[in-house]
Order: sequence, then C-alpha cells, then structure tokens
Amino acid sequence: LTSGKILRLGRILEPSENRAVIIALDHDSYAGPMAGLADPLKVLEVAAKGGADAVIVTPGTLLKHYKSIAGKLGVILRIDGGHTSLHPNPTPCSALTYTVEGAIHLGADAVVMMAYIGTEYETMSLRTLGYVASQCQECGMPLIAETFPTGEFSGKERLAEFVKLSARVGSAIGADLIKTFYTGSVESFKEVVSGCLTPVVVAGGSRMKTEKDALEVARGAVDAGANGVAFGRNVWQSCNPLGMVKALVDIVHKDKAVDKALDHIKS
Amino acid sequence: LTSGKILRLGRILEPSENRAVIIALDHDSYAGPMAGLADPLKVLEVAAKGGADAVIVTPGTLLKHYKSIAGKLGVILRIDGGHTSLHPNPTPCSALTYTVEGAIHLGADAVVMMAYIGTEYETMSLRTLGYVASQCQECGMPLIAETFPTGEFSGKERLAEFVKLSARVGSAIGADLIKTFYTGSVESFKEVVSGCLTPVVVAGGSRMKTEKDALEVARGAVDAGANGVAFGRNVWQSCNPLGMVKALVDIVHKDKAVDKALDHIKS
Amino acid sequence: LTSGKILRLGRILEPSENRAVIIALDHDSYAGPMAGLADPLKVLEVAAKGGADAVIVTPGTLLKHYKSIAGKLGVILRIDGGHTSLHPNPTPCSALTYTVEGAIHLGADAVVMMAYIGTEYETMSLRTLGYVASQCQECGMPLIAETFPTGEFSGKERLAEFVKLSARVGSAIGADLIKTFYTGSVESFKEVVSGCLTPVVVAGGSRMKTEKDALEVARGAVDAGANGVAFGRNVWQSCNPLGMVKALVDIVHKDKAVDKALDHIKS
Amino acid sequence: LTSGKILRLGRILEPSENRAVIIALDHDSYAGPMAGLADPLKVLEVAAKGGADAVIVTPGTLLKHYKSIAGKLGVILRIDGGHTSLHPNPTPCSALTYTVEGAIHLGADAVVMMAYIGTEYETMSLRTLGYVASQCQECGMPLIAETFPTGEFSGKERLAEFVKLSARVGSAIGADLIKTFYTGSVESFKEVVSGCLTPVVVAGGSRMKTEKDALEVARGAVDAGANGVAFGRNVWQSCNPLGMVKALVDIVHKDKAVDKALDHIKS
Amino acid sequence: LTSGKILRLGRILEPSENRAVIIALDHDSYAGPMAGLADPLKVLEVAAKGGADAVIVTPGTLLKHYKSIAGKLGVILRIDGGHTSLHPNPTPCSALTYTVEGAIHLGADAVVMMAYIGTEYETMSLRTLGYVASQCQECGMPLIAETFPTGEFSGKERLAEFVKLSARVGSAIGADLIKTFYTGSVESFKEVVSGCLTPVVVAGGSRMKTEKDALEVARGAVDAGANGVAFGRNVWQSCNPLGMVKALVDIVHKDKAVDKALDHIKS
Repeated sequence: LTSGKILRLGRILEPSENRAVIIALDHDSYAGPMAGLADPLKVLEVAAKGGADAVIVTPGTLLKHYKSIAGKLGVILRIDGGHTSLHPNPTPCSALTYTVEGAIHLGADAVVMMAYIGTEYETMSLRTLGYVASQCQECGMPLIAETFPTGEFSGKERLAEFVKLSARVGSAIGADLIKTFYTGSVESFKEVVSGCLTPVVVAGGSRMKTEKDALEVARGAVDAGANGVAFGRNVWQSCNPLGMVKALVDIVHKDKAVDKALDHIKS
Repeated sequence: LTSGKILRLGRILEPSENRAVIIALDHDSYAGPMAGLADPLKVLEVAAKGGADAVIVTPGTLLKHYKSIAGKLGVILRIDGGHTSLHPNPTPCSALTYTVEGAIHLGADAVVMMAYIGTEYETMSLRTLGYVASQCQECGMPLIAETFPTGEFSGKERLAEFVKLSARVGSAIGADLIKTFYTGSVESFKEVVSGCLTPVVVAGGSRMKTEKDALEVARGAVDAGANGVAFGRNVWQSCNPLGMVKALVDIVHKDKAVDKALDHIKS
Repeated sequence: LTSGKILRLGRILEPSENRAVIIALDHDSYAGPMAGLADPLKVLEVAAKGGADAVIVTPGTLLKHYKSIAGKLGVILRIDGGHTSLHPNPTPCSALTYTVEGAIHLGADAVVMMAYIGTEYETMSLRTLGYVASQCQECGMPLIAETFPTGEFSGKERLAEFVKLSARVGSAIGADLIKTFYTGSVESFKEVVSGCLTPVVVAGGSRMKTEKDALEVARGAVDAGANGVAFGRNVWQSCNPLGMVKALVDIVHKDKAVDKALDHIKS
Repeated sequence: LTSGKILRLGRILEPSENRAVIIALDHDSYAGPMAGLADPLKVLEVAAKGGADAVIVTPGTLLKHYKSIAGKLGVILRIDGGHTSLHPNPTPCSALTYTVEGAIHLGADAVVMMAYIGTEYETMSLRTLGYVASQCQECGMPLIAETFPTGEFSGKERLAEFVKLSARVGSAIGADLIKTFYTGSVESFKEVVSGCLTPVVVAGGSRMKTEKDALEVARGAVDAGANGVAFGRNVWQSCNPLGMVKALVDIVHKDKAVDKALDHIKS
Repeated sequence: LTSGKILRLGRILEPSENRAVIIALDHDSYAGPMAGLADPLKVLEVAAKGGADAVIVTPGTLLKHYKSIAGKLGVILRIDGGHTSLHPNPTPCSALTYTVEGAIHLGADAVVMMAYIGTEYETMSLRTLGYVASQCQECGMPLIAETFPTGEFSGKERLAEFVKLSARVGSAIGADLIKTFYTGSVESFKEVVSGCLTPVVVAGGSRMKTEKDALEVARGAVDAGANGVAFGRNVWQSCNPLGMVKALVDIVHKDKAVDKALDHIKS
C-alpha cells in the first residue's frame, strides 16, 4: 500500500494490532431519520466517548458535523447509494453518489461502497468498484468494499461459501478492506478471512434480538481473525449505545469475553 | 459549510434569522408561458418590491433579466428538467440541463434540482444529485434539492412519513437546503424539520383554492420550524401577486398571523 | 448577452431592426443531395446575391465553400442530426454531430440544433439542448434552438398552443433564438412571439404549393412580431430561387406586402 | 458586462445609483496587525453597522470571518501583494497571491489588484492585470484595478494628468472598476472620471490630518462624478470609525455636505 | 487559411478586393484618454458612419461598446501592451495582456500584437509572436502582427530595407496580416509588399502635418500594392475625423486620387 493509504488507514485500523471498532451511521441516505439516528451528532458523540476508532457517515452528516469529529474519529465516507426504502421495486445495485476526489477534499480517511454479488446486476457493481479502486490507488485513498452475496442464497453453509467468494472478489478487484456478514461460526469465518487478500471487518446488519447476540458476532469474528467490526443499528438502536461501543472496544481491542464486555450494557 | 456556500446562502436565507421568502418562476422550462408567468420581468419586479429574498429562475430568464435582478434578489438557478407538459408518458425523473460551473459563472447564488423519491427511477435521480452535490462542494455553490416522494403515496399520514424520509435523504447526500411539500400539520412537519440535516423550505405547488390556504401552509411550516417558503403559482397566479409576496414576508420574517398578513391581499 | 453573442448575432439579425432572412441548406446531412441542393454553392450564391443575412449549413458545406461565404453571409452551423431519410424506424430525437468549440474554430456565427417537444425522447433532447446552451454561454456563441412540437399534435388550435409552449421552453433552457413553425394566423403567432424570451424566426418546412403561400407565411410571421424567416426548400426548390430570396428580403427588411414582393418571382 | 459581473457588482455598487462606500482592510497582507486593524472583525462589524456596501479583505480575513460577513457586505478579495513593509528594497510591483478561480469558490464578489504605472516594472504589472482581466471575463468575476502612478511624479498638476492616464489604462486593459487617488480638486478629478471607461472610486491612502480632510476628499470625488470611495486607514484609524463609515454613507449615498456628515463624528 | 480565419478576415479585408480601411483606437492602453480618444464611442460611430471596415480596440473599449459595434464594424482586439507613456525608461518590447481564447469568446475577428525588430529584445517579441500564431491557427483566429523595425535605424533607405525585412519575418512566423510603416515611396513599398507572404496594411503613426500628408501615405501604399490602411491619430485627431474616414475609403476602396478624396475634409 502507498504512503497515503497507510497513513489514512492508520486512523481506522489501530496500527499496532490492525483492528478497528467502526460505528456505521450512514443509513440516512436510504432510510431517512431512522430511530436512533434522527440526530447523528448524538451517535458521533457516543462513538467518540466509547472509544470507537472510526465512523461511516454520509456527506451530509460530515458537512454538518466535521468540527465535532475532528481529532476524535476516523472518517469513512459513504460514496454510493441510490435506493431509498421507498423504492417500489429495489434492485441489488447501487450508484456512485459522491466522488473520490470530493472525499479527499472533505478530509475523509477512507471511502466505502457496496457491491452486491450473485445478481444480474453484479457486472455493473463490479465495474464501478474497480473504477473506484483504480481512482483510490491514484489518490492514496483507502477503499472499503461491502461485497455481500445477495439474500437469495439461503442455507447457512452455502452462505459461508458465498461470503468467502465475495470477500475475495472484492479484495481481488482492489479494495483495501472488506466489510461483510458474519457467517455464523468461527470455523466458517476463518475461511473467509484466510481467503481474503485484505483485512476484513464484520457488519452488524439489522438489529439483533439482544445485545449479547451482537457481541457474540463480534467475538466470533475476531476469534476467526477478523480485523474488527462495523456496527450501526446494533449500537445506536440499543438500549445503551455508549455501553455497546465500550463493549465492542473491549472485545476488539482488549480481547475480552462477551460476558465481561456485557458489563458495560448492564451498568 | 465553506466560505463560498455561506456567503452565497446569505443572499437567500436572511442570515440573522436563517429564513427566506423565495419566489419560484422556473416553470417555463416545462410548461412554457404559464398564465401569470408570460412575462417573467413582472414577477421579478413584484418579488423585489414585495421584499422577497430570492427567486428561482431558468437560465433563459436570468440571461434576459439579470440587470433587473442585480442588487435586489438572490438568484437560484434551475439546472435540471427535461420533461415538458407535452410529454406523452412522463416519468418521475429529470435530467441536468445546465452545469454547476456555468451557474457560478452566471453569478447564481445557488442551484436547484429535483430528486423524485420512491420510484423506479430514484437511483438515477440520486446519483445525479450526489454528483452535483460533490461539484457544488468544490465550487462553494449551495445546492437546493427538491426531494419529493412521488404522488403514488396517498394518505396523509404516510405522506408525512415519506416527506420526512425524502428530506433527510436529500440532506444526507449533500444538499444544503431542502425544498419539499408541507405535510398538512405543524406536528407532522416538525418531524420533517427535525429529521433533516439542513434548513427546509416548503414548496407551494399547484395553486390552492384561496390565498388564505396558501398563507396557512406558510404559517404552519414556519411554526413547525421550517426556514421559509418557495412559492410560485400561489403568488403569480394570485389575484394580488404583490400582496401575496408581502403577506409571505410578514409570516416568514415578521412572524405575523395569517389574518394579519391577509391585509395585504385585501387592500 | 455577452460581447461574443452580440457581435456574432449582429451578423445574423440585422442590428438596427433585429430581423433576418436566413436560408437553410443543411438538409444534406439527412437527405443527401435533395433536388435543388445538389450543388450548395449555387444556393449560397443565390442567398448572397438576393440579400439574405445568413445561411444554415452543414460542416461539409462550410468546409468546402467558406471562401464563397466570407464577407457575404452570416454562418449558422448545424451541429446535430443523426437520422437519415433511410432510417427504418426514425425517432424524434437527434444527436450532436459537431462540437461548439469546433463551430467557433470554423468561424460560425451561431450553432443550430433541434429539440423535439412532446415525445418520449424529449428528456434526452432537452438535456442536450441545456448542455449546449451552457457551453455556448461560456464561449460567446449564439445558440438557435428548433423546439418543435412533434407532428402527433394535430388540429390547428392545439398546434398554436404547443408551438407557444415549445418556443418558451427552448428559450427558458438558454437558447438565444428560436426557430419554429408558423401557427397559421397572425393572432396565434403573436402569442408565440410574446411568450418567448428570445427573438423568433419561422421555418418554412416542406415546399408549399405556391411561392405566394410561402411568402404569406413570412408576411404573417413578421406581422405577428417574428424576427424573420429561416427558409430552405421553399427557396431552392422554387422555380425562381433568387426571386424568392429577394421577395423574403422585401417582406422582412422592407415590410412590403406579399403581392409587391411577388414581383421578384414573376420577373 | 456579463450576467455574473453584473450580479456580483450589484453587491458592491448599489445598482440604482451605481455608487459604493467600500471599507478597505486588506493592509495586513503587507503591514501585519496595523493599529486599528489588529482585530479585523471589529472593522467588519463597524462597516456593516455603518451601512458600507462592501469590504476589501485578504483571504485570511475572509476565511476567518465569512460568517460575520454573509448577507451584510459585498466581498472584494485582495489577490495580489508580495511586498511587506520589511522589504529592504521595495519595488513598485506586486505579484498574484491568490487565483481568480479560488476567489470565485470563496464566494467573493470581486477581486482587486494593483498595477503601478510609470515605473520600470509596469510591463510586468500590466501583463498580470491583463491576464487576470481575461480570466475574470471568462468567470463573470468583476476586476477592480488600482492603477496608481508611482509617487515619483510630484507636483499636483502633473499628478492629475498621470492619475487620468493611469485610470484609463487600467480600464482599457479590461478592469471593471478603477480605484485611484483623488487629484486634489473637483475640476481635475472630473477629467479622471470622464477619461475612464469604467466607474471610479477614490482610495483614502494614509491617514489624513483630520476626519474632515478625509470627508472632503470623498465629497470632492463624488462631486466630480466618482462612484464612491474605498477608504481604510481613514476609517479604522479614526477616533470614531463607525462615525466615519456613517459620514461616508451620507456623502456618497445621500449627497450630504461635509459639515452635515461630520455630525456622525462629533456625536 | 482555415475556414475560421477566412470567415473572420472577410470582416476586415473586403473579400472581393482584399482591401481594408481600419481605424485604430487602441492607444488608451498606453496613453490613457488621448486628445480625440477620450470618448471611444465617438470614434466608433465616425468609423462606422464613414464606411470603415474594422477597428482596433482594447478589451475595455470592446466590453463597454460591443452593442454599438455589432453588425457595423469588424473587431480587431489589441492583446498586448505593457508600456505606458509614463514608463521612465521604455524598452521596445511588449507583453501579452489578453488571451487568444478570451478574444475569440469576446467575438473578435482578429487579434493584433507588436513585435519590435532590430532590438536586444526581439527574441522575446518573436517568441511571443510565434506562440500566439500557433494558438491562432488552432482557433481559426486571424493574427495581425505589427513588425516594426525600431526607430534607431535612421535614414530613409535603410528604413525601407528594414521594413521589408520585418514584414517578411512577421509573415514567416505565422501572422496573417502585417501592419507596418510606409517607407516613403511607392517603389520602396512595392518591395515590402512583394517580399511579404501576407497582405500588408500601413500604419499612420503620429499625427502628420496635414490631412493631405496622411492621405498621400495611404495613396502611395495602395499604389504599391498594400491592402489598405490602419490609421488612428491621423483620423481622430484630424479637424474632420468623419471626412478622413470617408477620404480613406475613397482611396482604398474606390481608388480615387488624393485631391478628390480631400473633398471630404474640406466640406
């Protein structure tokens, strides 16, 4: 990696251990003011106070709150989208809604985009991913790719295979960090990690039943060799967002057990 | 926001109170010489005389009348369009018809564009919106987004929810000001305003039954925390356009009641 | 308008009266060597000799005959097209076939392009029109838009309404001169002219039954306030092309009656 | 002038009367925190409160205080300099220190630069002036030129002749507004104004002995047909800066006599 | 020559005879409001009324008066300068003060610049001339070069030799028209004309003793094969500027004798 990518990634993945707790709050670009995210400043403050390394934000949130972020959190800018939750017939394909050059001018430490794998639209997604990867390399801007297999592939075992394939594809095309789903077990996720050319962080996805469930995903991923987590709804829709951030930091950076980490939630 | 955006927005939203009365007269790019808008100069003169802060104009109107606008009104340039009212099968999607660089050279204080939410075409709309947002950020040019849910969503309650979502989506993608529909009640519009990352102004839309109806929309929006209005047909198709501008100024900038403001219409 | 646009337009619309006789001979880009236009030099010579102000030409005609044009006629370059008369399934949409920068380097005094209104393709047409308008403003190059409603709107009364709408739309998007159809009566065309933000010239279209018919269109248009004519087939497919140019000059620049102007044809 | 130039100049020269009171506070780019200018915000507030039309500022002052300027004052950005008061051997020649494109992105309403006339270095100055004039024309950005004859030309009569020549030279090369010295008498300054192709404002220069002296310069200039004043030290080094701004507004915009205007200073 | 150059030159050199009467009024860029040129509009009106073909103007004059020029006069833009008459130690070398691209956007029909020959600085002059010639060729913009030998070469015979050399040098480097001094006799100027690769027009220079003297220079030049004149002070400092323009038109375009042409002055 170039100097620009290493210096910037160093504000996301803590360099000595190469791990990160990332809080995602970019959901407003498709779902509007979701419960827990109506005021993004609250989430940013919780992320910083709890010790998270970086946040995923939309351009609008960055433009409004950069003064509150400066010196506290790494900034990952969401640069794609294009579907809202009102779309009558959504397709698994996103479009670029910002530019890499614009991201660098805004001071972002990385850009993040989706690439849905296993759909009729994947060619378009991968073309865009590759184009952005090429631009990012020129600029020294780290690229985080969310290369998810689409939901049509059911059955846990096949999912693991598809996540593994998708993560490697994203890294092969030129992303610097892969954000993907947890595959349900340490064993299966080990294969995802070992099959991928770059570090991997796990996404949280929809809110899970309990905080414990979410922390176990984090624990399993890290045990499997993942480089951390990128959690959103499981943090800011929790009954205790600050506790969740602290618990994730305990698991990812201090290698604590889930039960120990849960202390932050209860208190 | 950057120096360029703040200085330019300061000619639209009166800086001490952050509110604006905007008169929209950009309808000729799709509907030709509408009743009341055959001669845009008359509308420009009424807007200035009545104390409006800014106008929304097409490039053609600006090129013809900039000398009459200079020093009197902020200029918001319509940069998209592409449907006329003769289109046999209109789709909720517009196309860029001018450039941000061109707008800045013409001396515009902001650009405005549509992004229809909740349609099959929203990906294209949001991609264009994001691209323009990125350009605007580079140039210090404020971007006003009209992020409207399409008309297929009927029922007042759902409308409020969809307007709220759409406004936030537009602001998340990087617009600096959202222009949207009034949701019918102060309570519901408060949520639109609080859920949006930027100031919000309400559009007037089609001509309402009475001037009082239109002023009540303005009054409700401001009471809900909106930053003003962007009215067109309800001004220049009124029996008393100048009175309507003055009444809107009374409501938005002087916080007068509708009945008091109506004095301008009667006289 | 800028210095460049005013100086260039001054070679098309005679500045003291703002009127023009334009001879269109750009039909070879879609119809090949039409009868009367096999040798464009003959038409150019007739136009100059008869006192026309400007000609509409294709790049090929300009490249071959600029020496015969220099100092005699204003030059309007056709920059779009893309359908020939051999197209098996023509759609009302044209494509740019030359650039504004190229036109300025060739020494053109204006560029002309089509935008069909009232079709499914109008979005594409209007986007291109706006893009060219923006470029032309940067370069000081006048833009002539042919914003025609498509033929599907039959019935004279509706036609007048649609021509009016189309002319205004073209001028709102940023054209400097509109070329459109005559609506059949002085009264109806007055509305087209007064509803348009720019000067208007009438197209001749297909060859009319008699020379008198064509001259009456010119006479009616000028009486309605139009700024002149842009005639092609009705000139160079006439039995007396030179006479027709002279007759048009009589009507447009000398305000003569049709019967008087017809003297040029008979002799 | 183009749309961009007219709209922007309309925020400096009040359009109905074409006159301006400009407060210059750009001295920190060569003299550091001069007495009276240590805190530019105070001067900006005095300028706005007193009713001045615009200010001349350095990029640093704009970047720090644009929020206090927005909606209140036109912004003229100093884009040249390059000598400080510590220069051991100063030459009458300045260098560009900012770009026109940068100025337009910052939201400036005009740029201002020097061109010393009557020195060995004038070729370099005029070349730069012309280059900037050409760029400003492309961007719609007004250019204010300070075309001063250098101090070596002593003797009042010759000074008047040289100021006249210098003002015309600056306007011939393409500036949109000339800022120059007062020539000491209404009669001689009338010739400066009538010989110049553009509006003219008078500079105040070093602090004069009394406030009355400074106001008499303003009065004389306006009586000679000048379009206003651009005063700095004579405002913010005055015992009563706010009074001076108000007095200048009285003279320039209300055509009051010096004695009447002096009331603002005494009170 | 390209289409662009021929079409534009056709507005300067009347195409059928290739001759021009050019009125130069670009002196304000170095001498300010010279006697006779304080108001350039008067000179422009005299030029048009008298039948001149084109004018040489500064950017400032064009920006102020393009509406009065449109459709009446060809426009030659002065794009260099850099010395004023206040320069304490002038060197025979000028600098570019405008751009070819800017000139083309302003609608100029040609650009004109100096190149002093026979001085220490000629390398710099010729380098700039060649650079502009190359740009002009790309843009289709005619370039007029004033390739004057400097005044140090005294003695009429040597002057003729030097003018001949300088004219050819300018044309060899890529200018499209040479403006130079008359060499005092038809015989000697014939050699200038025949030795030059392009058309040649004679400059008038300082005001001559009588109008007759000036007309005899024009007569002699045309008799020697020159393509016309570019006169300034000898026109607008004449007791009868309009008469002088008419007299020059008589000589250049109607091949009249000096005595006959002088009738315009007397009347």
